Amino acid sequence: MNGATALLRTAADAGVRVCFANPGTTELPLVVALDDVPEIRPVLGLFEGVCTGAADGFARMAGTPAMALLHLGPGLANGLANLHNARRARTPVLTVVGDHATDHHVHDAPLESDIATLAAPMSSWVGTASRAAEMAVRTAEAITAARQGGPATLIVPADAQWDAAGPMEVPAAPPPAPAAYPVAEAARLLTTGDGPAALLLGGGALTPTALRAAGRIALATGCRLLSETFPARMERGGGLPAPERLPYPLPQARAVLGDLETLVLVGARAPVAFFAYPDQPRTPIADHTTVHTLAGQSQDGAVALEQLAEAVAAGADPRATTGSSPVELPTSGPLSPESIAAVLAALQPEGAIVVDEAVTTGRAYFPLAAAAPPHTYLALTGGSIGQGLPCATGAAVADPDRAVIAFQADGSAMYTLQALWTHAREGLDVTTLLCANRSYRILQGELAHAGLAERGPAAAALTDLSSPTVDWVLLAEGMGVPGRRVTTVEELVPALTEALSTPGPRLLELIL
Amino acid sequence: MNGATALLRTAADAGVRVCFANPGTTELPLVVALDDVPEIRPVLGLFEGVCTGAADGFARMAGTPAMALLHLGPGLANGLANLHNARRARTPVLTVVGDHATDHHVHDAPLESDIATLAAPMSSWVGTASRAAEMAVRTAEAITAARQGGPATLIVPADAQWDAAGPMEVPAAPPPAPAAYPVAEAARLLTTGDGPAALLLGGGALTPTALRAAGRIALATGCRLLSETFPARMERGGGLPAPERLPYPLPQARAVLGDLETLVLVGARAPVAFFAYPDQPRTPIADHTTVHTLAGQSQDGAVALEQLAEAVAAGADPRATTGSSPVELPTSGPLSPESIAAVLAALQPEGAIVVDEAVTTGRAYFPLAAAAPPHTYLALTGGSIGQGLPCATGAAVADPDRAVIAFQADGSAMYTLQALWTHAREGLDVTTLLCANRSYRILQGELAHAGLAERGPAAAALTDLSSPTVDWVLLAEGMGVPGRRVTTVEELVPALTEALSTPGPRLLELIL
Repeated sequence: MNGATALLRTAADAGVRVCFANPGTTELPLVVALDDVPEIRPVLGLFEGVCTGAADGFARMAGTPAMALLHLGPGLANGLANLHNARRARTPVLTVVGDHATDHHVHDAPLESDIATLAAPMSSWVGTASRAAEMAVRTAEAITAARQGGPATLIVPADAQWDAAGPMEVPAAPPPAPAAYPVAEAARLLTTGDGPAALLLGGGALTPTALRAAGRIALATGCRLLSETFPARMERGGGLPAPERLPYPLPQARAVLGDLETLVLVGARAPVAFFAYPDQPRTPIADHTTVHTLAGQSQDGAVALEQLAEAVAAGADPRATTGSSPVELPTSGPLSPESIAAVLAALQPEGAIVVDEAVTTGRAYFPLAAAAPPHTYLALTGGSIGQGLPCATGAAVADPDRAVIAFQADGSAMYTLQALWTHAREGLDVTTLLCANRSYRILQGELAHAGLAERGPAAAALTDLSSPTVDWVLLAEGMGVPGRRVTTVEELVPALTEALSTPGPRLLELIL
Repeated sequence: MNGATALLRTAADAGVRVCFANPGTTELPLVVALDDVPEIRPVLGLFEGVCTGAADGFARMAGTPAMALLHLGPGLANGLANLHNARRARTPVLTVVGDHATDHHVHDAPLESDIATLAAPMSSWVGTASRAAEMAVRTAEAITAARQGGPATLIVPADAQWDAAGPMEVPAAPPPAPAAYPVAEAARLLTTGDGPAALLLGGGALTPTALRAAGRIALATGCRLLSETFPARMERGGGLPAPERLPYPLPQARAVLGDLETLVLVGARAPVAFFAYPDQPRTPIADHTTVHTLAGQSQDGAVALEQLAEAVAAGADPRATTGSSPVELPTSGPLSPESIAAVLAALQPEGAIVVDEAVTTGRAYFPLAAAAPPHTYLALTGGSIGQGLPCATGAAVADPDRAVIAFQADGSAMYTLQALWTHAREGLDVTTLLCANRSYRILQGELAHAGLAERGPAAAALTDLSSPTVDWVLLAEGMGVPGRRVTTVEELVPALTEALSTPGPRLLELIL
C-alpha cells in the first residue's frame, strides 16, 4: 500500500464517502488509488470552488466529513472562498492538496507556492504528511479536527503519495469532552426578567429536536425565538416552530433586537453588523441587552435546549402536533421577489433541500417557507458568494432521493457556474431557480445605505450586469442542463411543477 | 479628498490607467471615487480571477502597472491563481483589496479573514493603508514594489477609504540601481569552450532588440538560442531570430540541453522539471553543463545582450533584415493540433497578440509561428490554468488596435470562462480559438509518463470531460460573444478569416 492508498483507506474507515476532485499531476497517485478504495466516490468538478462548496453541502447534509482533492497552491486558492463559507458553517470538510515531491521544493518549479500559508486563514487545522508512513495518522488527525472545528487542510507531497506506506496504525480519536451548559442562569434570565427576552438559535440548535424544545421554552417563558441570519442547516416547515430570522440589514436587525432585556445564544454567535458604516453602530444588539451564551457554536444546542426546557418546567407544545396551513399558490402576475417566493414555498415538495443564495431576491422567501412541508434550508454562511450551485451539488450527492432546489441569484451564480456541469454529469436532481435581476442589486442597496445613491458612470457600470445580459438558459444547456426562461407567474407555476417532478437537473431562468 | 480618492489619484499619477474590478461593500468608496479620477478606466469582471488575469495581460502589453480591485479575503482568494501567474511573469499588478473598517475586526463579521496572510504567497509586497492619511504613500510604495518585483497587494480598510485623507505627499520612488552584467565571463564561456553552448532567453531578453543582439551573438560564436518554455511576453515573427523553445516534457527538455557544455541565462531562471517523478531527475540540465547567469529575471536582458554582442565582436545579422517565408495555409483535412497550428500561424495578421493557453493542443503552434508576421506571444507563466481568457481581456484593453487571439484549451478555459462576458461588455477584439479535446489530456499524458496509463474507472472519470460534452458555442453566446463550431480545416479557414477581420469578440469551438 502506498501513501495515497493509506490516506484514502484511513478516510474511508473514518466515514468519508465522497471526494469532490479537481486534480493535477501532483495528485495522480491519489487519483489512481481511488480505484482501490471503492467506498469513496469520486466526483469531478471543473473548478475548485465547485469541489469545496460541494464538500460543504455534502457534509452539511450527511453529517459525515467530505473530501475535496485540489492541485497545489493555485488549486487550493480557487477553493478557498467556499472553504471560507464552510469554516463559518463549521462543516467537516477534509481538503487534500497535493504538493511537489519533497526534494523538488528547492527548485522552485513554476507551480511552487506556500500552500500551508494559503490554507491557514480558511482552515481550522493545517498539516502536512511529509512521508508516506505519516499519511494515515495525519489523515486521521485532519478528520478529527474537521469534525471538531470545521475545514481541515492536509498537504500531501507527491513522494508521500507514491512511496510505500508501511503498516497503518491510526490512534483512535479522543472522545469529545462532555459539555456542561449554563442552564440555570439561562432559566433565571428567562423567568425573572421584566423586559422582553429571546433565544437566538444557530448551528446545532436548528434541528427538529432543538426547535421543538425551543418552542416549548417560548410557550413556558414568553420569550421570542430568533434564528441567525445565515444558518448552515435548518429544518423547517411541517409545523416546526419557526424562529424569526434576524434580518441582514443592520437597521432592521436593530429593530428586531432593540427592545430585548435578555438575549440567550444557543449555537449562535452574538450578532454583528455584516459591514461597518460611518457613524453607525457595529452590532445590532442594544447596550441595555444582557447576552448569555447557553451553548457555543460547536456544542450540542439541542441537548442544551432540552435541559433548559426542563429547567423552566416547559410543558408540551400543542403547536408541534398540528400541521401548518399550506402556502397559497399565486397563479398570475409579474415575477417579483414576493411572487417567486410564494410560488416556491407553495410548490416545494416534502423533503426538499433548499439552498438559498438568492440574496436580495430571496429575502421574501424565508418567512413564507415556514408554512411549507418539512424541508431543509441551507444558507450562505460566510457571505462569500458563489456558494449556492456547488452546495446544491454536494447536497444532491448526499441525498439522491430528495429534491434539491438551488434558489439562486444571477450575480452570485456566475462565480461558480461550472457546478452546472457536475449537476449534468452526475444526473443530480437539482432544480436551479436562477433569479436574474441583472445587477449587483445588493451593492446598489449598500450604496444607497451609505448615502451614495447618486452614482456616477463608473459606479453605475460596476454594479450593472445588463450589458450584455447573460443568457442563463444557454449557459445551462452549454453544460448539459436543460434550461427554460420564465417571465411571468403563469409560466413559472407549470415550469417549476414540471422541473420538480422530473428527475435530473433543470434550470429555470426567472427574469425579474 | 477622502482616502479612496487619494489612492486612485496616486495610482493615476504613477501611470495606472485601468482598474479591473469585482468590488463589494467594503470597496464602495473606491467605486464611487473612480468617477473622480477619469484617467483610470473601470472594467468589470464577473469573477476575480478574470480581474487579476486581465491586469496581468494589460501590464504585460502596456508595460505600466494595472490595478485589480477585489472584495475582502474571499475575493482576493478567487484572484490568487492568476496572481500566481503574474508573480511568475513578474508583471506589475497592483491588487487593491478592501477590508472591514478597522474597528470592525474585533467583531469577526462573517466575511472577516486574514487578508495579509492570504496575499503573501502570491505577492512580491503586501501592505495595509491603516489610515486615510497613509493611503497615498502606501499606494506609491505598492506600485514601486510591483514595478520592481511583480504583484503587490495593498489592503485598504473601509474607514481608510471613507475618511478624509489630508494633503497628498508622495515621496519620489528611488531610481533603480544601475546593473552590472558579468559580460566578460559570458563572452569567455561562449568563445573558448570546446563543446556546444546556448543562450537561454527569458523575461526582458525576448524583445526585438534583445533577440537581434542574441542572433548576432549566435552568428559570431556558434551558440544556440533557446527560450524559456513559458515566456511572459515574447516578440516573434517577421524575421526576428527565433530561439528554440525549451520543451515542457522533461525527457524532451533533457534531449535539448543534454549535450551543452555551457548554458548562459539571460532573463531566464535555470530550467527545472515542471513536476517531479519517481526515479527521474529534477532538472533537465546535465551534470556536465556550466550554467552562467548573465542577467537575472528582473534585469534588463536586452542591455546585457547588447553588451555581450560587443564583447564577442559580433557583426551584423544578415537574417535580421530579410523577411521570413510565409507559413503555408492548409486548406483541407481534419482538425488536429498540427492543422490548427498551421492555419493559425498562416492567418494571424501582423501585430497580432497571441495568448497561448492551448496546453497540449498548442505545442505544434510555437515553432510554426516563427515564420508568421510580427506578433506578440504571451504564455502561461505559472502553470495555473485559467489564465488565457483573462489575459486576452487585459491585452485587448491595453492594445485596442491589435487583434488578440486567445489560443485556448477547453479544460483550462473552464476555470475563468466568465472572461467572455467582459470580452462582450467591452467590445474587445478577441478571437478565441477554443480547442475542445474534451479531456484533461495533459493529465492523461502525465499518467502515462508516470507509468499509470492503465487507468481504472475512477482515474478515467477524473480526466475525462466528455460526459456531458461542453458546448462552448452556447457558453459564448450566453455571455454575449458570437460563437461558431468548426470541425474541419475547410470550415476553420473561412471562419478564422472572418473572425479576424471583424471587430469585436468571436469564439470558434474547434472540435478535435
